[in-house]
Amino acid sequence: MRPVIGFIGLGNMGQPMAGNLLAAGYPVRVWNRSPARVAPLAARGAVCVSRPEEVAEPGGLLVSSLANDQVLDEVVGANRELLRRLGPDGIHISTSTVAPSTSRRLAEGHRQYGVTYLAAPVLGRPDAAAAARLWIFLSGRPEARERALPVLRALGQGVFDLGEDPGAANVVKLACNFLLASAMEAMAEAFTLAEKNGVARGLVADLLVRTVFDCPVYRNYGKQIAEQRYQPGLFKLSLGLKDVSLVLQTAASSEVPMPLASLLHDHFLAASAKGRGDLDWTGVAGEVSEAAGLRAPAPSEAAAGRE
Amino acid sequence: MRPVIGFIGLGNMGQPMAGNLLAAGYPVRVWNRSPARVAPLAARGAVCVSRPEEVAEPGGLLVSSLANDQVLDEVVGANRELLRRLGPDGIHISTSTVAPSTSRRLAEGHRQYGVTYLAAPVLGRPDAAAAARLWIFLSGRPEARERALPVLRALGQGVFDLGEDPGAANVVKLACNFLLASAMEAMAEAFTLAEKNGVARGLVADLLVRTVFDCPVYRNYGKQIAEQRYQPGLFKLSLGLKDVSLVLQTAASSEVPMPLASLLHDHFLAASAKGRGDLDWTGVAGEVSEAAGLRAPAPSEAAAGRE
Amino acid sequence: MRPVIGFIGLGNMGQPMAGNLLAAGYPVRVWNRSPARVAPLAARGAVCVSRPEEVAEPGGLLVSSLANDQVLDEVVGANRELLRRLGPDGIHISTSTVAPSTSRRLAEGHRQYGVTYLAAPVLGRPDAAAAARLWIFLSGRPEARERALPVLRALGQGVFDLGEDPGAANVVKLACNFLLASAMEAMAEAFTLAEKNGVARGLVADLLVRTVFDCPVYRNYGKQIAEQRYQPGLFKLSLGLKDVSLVLQTAASSEVPMPLASLLHDHFLAASAKGRGDLDWTGVAGEVSEAAGLRAPAPSEAAAGRE
Amino acid sequence: MRPVIGFIGLGNMGQPMAGNLLAAGYPVRVWNRSPARVAPLAARGAVCVSRPEEVAEPGGLLVSSLANDQVLDEVVGANRELLRRLGPDGIHISTSTVAPSTSRRLAEGHRQYGVTYLAAPVLGRPDAAAAARLWIFLSGRPEARERALPVLRALGQGVFDLGEDPGAANVVKLACNFLLASAMEAMAEAFTLAEKNGVARGLVADLLVRTVFDCPVYRNYGKQIAEQRYQPGLFKLSLGLKDVSLVLQTAASSEVPMPLASLLHDHFLAASAKGRGDLDWTGVAGEVSEAAGLRAPAPSEAAAGRE
Repeated sequence: MRPVIGFIGLGNMGQPMAGNLLAAGYPVRVWNRSPARVAPLAARGAVCVSRPEEVAEPGGLLVSSLANDQVLDEVVGANRELLRRLGPDGIHISTSTVAPSTSRRLAEGHRQYGVTYLAAPVLGRPDAAAAARLWIFLSGRPEARERALPVLRALGQGVFDLGEDPGAANVVKLACNFLLASAMEAMAEAFTLAEKNGVARGLVADLLVRTVFDCPVYRNYGKQIAEQRYQPGLFKLSLGLKDVSLVLQTAASSEVPMPLASLLHDHFLAASAKGRGDLDWTGVAGEVSEAAGLRAPAPSEAAAGRE
Repeated sequence: MRPVIGFIGLGNMGQPMAGNLLAAGYPVRVWNRSPARVAPLAARGAVCVSRPEEVAEPGGLLVSSLANDQVLDEVVGANRELLRRLGPDGIHISTSTVAPSTSRRLAEGHRQYGVTYLAAPVLGRPDAAAAARLWIFLSGRPEARERALPVLRALGQGVFDLGEDPGAANVVKLACNFLLASAMEAMAEAFTLAEKNGVARGLVADLLVRTVFDCPVYRNYGKQIAEQRYQPGLFKLSLGLKDVSLVLQTAASSEVPMPLASLLHDHFLAASAKGRGDLDWTGVAGEVSEAAGLRAPAPSEAAAGRE
Repeated sequence: MRPVIGFIGLGNMGQPMAGNLLAAGYPVRVWNRSPARVAPLAARGAVCVSRPEEVAEPGGLLVSSLANDQVLDEVVGANRELLRRLGPDGIHISTSTVAPSTSRRLAEGHRQYGVTYLAAPVLGRPDAAAAARLWIFLSGRPEARERALPVLRALGQGVFDLGEDPGAANVVKLACNFLLASAMEAMAEAFTLAEKNGVARGLVADLLVRTVFDCPVYRNYGKQIAEQRYQPGLFKLSLGLKDVSLVLQTAASSEVPMPLASLLHDHFLAASAKGRGDLDWTGVAGEVSEAAGLRAPAPSEAAAGRE
Repeated sequence: MRPVIGFIGLGNMGQPMAGNLLAAGYPVRVWNRSPARVAPLAARGAVCVSRPEEVAEPGGLLVSSLANDQVLDEVVGANRELLRRLGPDGIHISTSTVAPSTSRRLAEGHRQYGVTYLAAPVLGRPDAAAAARLWIFLSGRPEARERALPVLRALGQGVFDLGEDPGAANVVKLACNFLLASAMEAMAEAFTLAEKNGVARGLVADLLVRTVFDCPVYRNYGKQIAEQRYQPGLFKLSLGLKDVSLVLQTAASSEVPMPLASLLHDHFLAASAKGRGDLDWTGVAGEVSEAAGLRAPAPSEAAAGRE
């Protein structure tokens, strides 16, 4: 029989992930800050609890999918009650994209309660999460990794083992998101160059994937950036800004100048300053169009609605 | 029977390309500035001539593969004798990576002799040229494109039609080379971040192509940059500098700020200033390692040999 | 009779500042983490104490000169004993270059003890501090500013009033340091351009101050950068890195893209990664020389000694 | 008696300069492409001619003040009739801001006619030209410099001798303009940081010149950038773009990576792409405001009027 899984955080990523655990036959106990998101999972058999610590099964598995380092710190890291219930022998599988230093610090803190912290950040957007086709980077203590593996396999199409350092998986995840954002910036500049020289943006995007850039990143993001279709925000620009900030923070603490990451940060920050934080993160391409004197993307409806 | 092809420029790209025309059954007349490179083709049946204008067949096809805008201008553009022999109805297929403005200017100049200039820059390195697996971007007058097509098909795995503007194919080629160099810079920064955070460069490179960057660019360049293996110079860093300069020059004349291209330019220029122009262009990644206090690539043997 | 001043932090700046207070007739009680630096002031009449809280005079004035935000937080912000003794009606004059957000947070925390926090960051290097020729930016509650004024006048040649927001003075100080570092980078690039074009670096530095850049920044830093004389470290490169990081952190939280600050950060970080953190901060100019293939500055002796 | 001076180019700089030569008692022969600008000088005694070559006095002095490298090349460099009349022993004093390589090439070409080319670029805007308070950088053959000196002294407040290389004076001039533009960018970023943190732009500008940035550049440009007053265009943004482009071109040919110059170029290019080329070049500061989500400068009326 499959063990109970505690699940914390039912955002755009957490909700389909928890759903896949249910589909795989795991009993799941869920908690989310805003209770509205809990209902669909309850309808599918999840047990809903009103405080995060109640999801914990002594010596069991806890999966978290939280917005950022600070929320992860608050909801789990500083939640003594939760960690006390979970440990000893409990495992916390943290799927959020956070700083490696955050993972290392949390691993240290969890240990006092006998809980093992595993970093298991995921690569893929909500549609990939729903299809259980995420890519998952995993690091932390070996025995815990072993136990976590079947659960993670229910969430994605591949789990990559990155060894014992709980920060390692986050390093790789940040590197990936940095590479994604870099490809966006490069396409934004290339397509704008083409556009102002009389060659259609879409034509260049198409040629890329028919020649040497034949992979999902250039196919999917290339199409969005060529068509300047920056809504809906599958992965929001504000989250892109957060991730690029984490890249720069990690680069600074390990003394790695990353001028391209600095450039990306300046563009994400500008887009955010202009009220475009709720656009899809491909919307950062609008900065390039605008600098070339072309029309900028409209602030997202969500953003407009809030003001 | 296949028509005679004049071929000018037998460098690392031109030589295998001319060889493929011979292999496809075309009679080929070749010229190269330094005669040493002509012998292997002569042995395979090419007719060798001592002045560029002698390759021209009246009303026929001329293919050029020359180092840069200036050499193309001198050897063909300003060669009245050559253009007089070739036209009218002659076609010059220019496969070099040059500025769109150079193509437009040459097309204009050729027209006085009844010659049609076609831009047909090629994507791929010498090994792809040898295997007739280049990607070819083609633009210029429609009838001429029609006539050039069978010849170009003997050189590559795909020919992409970019319409009538003779500069259009160059715009696309420059965009591609810019995207390639951008991917290199991004990987250089990402791998160095990983390295200084205890994650092996090669591991990240490997994960990229097993997940969302599964395409030749990240596979081939990723491996080189992960292993910091910047020799031999299949496509030399000095040529990368030339191409990024052409990108910026085209961007300036069309008023497109390209901060990422500016960054690439600064890195290629630095590598060149340090005597690394003969390394493979992936050697630009050394700038990132060096800025992080790690060991830099050795100047190429060729460069060392010259000094 | 002049009131007793508590003084915390006797580094390169704090020591001459405390000395000037003594010279102006103030009774001074001093504390420093490493006691060695206390002796010279004791010899001049300062009372030396062994714990920071002992410098506090109830309802009196406390001046701090600490290395960075974290140390300030630890030694004063989190020191309940110190704040209890000092307040109510006590004033803490914080002369460190810290983030505006740090000042605002500390002001909030001090208020619980009845203590007023004033931000009073100083512009000038140790020689200016010794000569009581610092420039001082001051912000915080008006009555407290009034009381602090005579003390600050004993330390500098000018005190500028920046209003009630305790963060405002830090904003201005960070802006100044950013402008200083920007001028260094600009001179480094300009002098290197001259050098590689056959014009002596010193000649350009000289012409600047004889024409439109006739001010201390270009005169003093210009001379150092022209002569590539980056030792001794009057203001260390590692502190420059800290300040540029504070600039970027403040810029991020207020959504101001500062690409020039990003560039400076990358150069300071690179210099630090190469072991040059103990050079004078003008040593950042070495990054520009090195990128141009010219000789780099030697790591500081101090840095070398540590390895 | 003072020798006749030939004067070519009566733009915003040339007109007041020619006027000062008249005021100093020199007989002046003037030519300008558009004849309208000649009248005011004719009224003051200048002899107006209808073709540039007619200003030349055999073995005499010719001063040119032309828009850019290309115009200088066309109107003087390629004007055989002009050079034939002027030389031998004639001197051409070229006051334009052009590339060092242009000066070197022209010096070479002039020599065939016995004419000496002197580079004498000037630092200062039209108001400084009118007040004969320009700073002048001079390089070229020594005897010619000797002869040119009295004439140049009538135009400025200081003449700086930069030796025999005709390109040297241009190197220094480009370095100065680069430093000016760098100071603008730095102030734009610093003032915007202040503004979004509640500190008035003008307050920071004021503090700069009251402390360590007490020089004309920060005083004058600081005021303009603080007040965001980018009209009238005393020195147009389009000219700033031209000069930064010359800096980068010179940097590339001498292998000096100048990332700050690259950044400036991207900002000037963006401003130009948005139709702001006729603003004062301080208008480049608008790029920083805009990236921070603040209002951008209006395109200049002149620009608007043309469209």
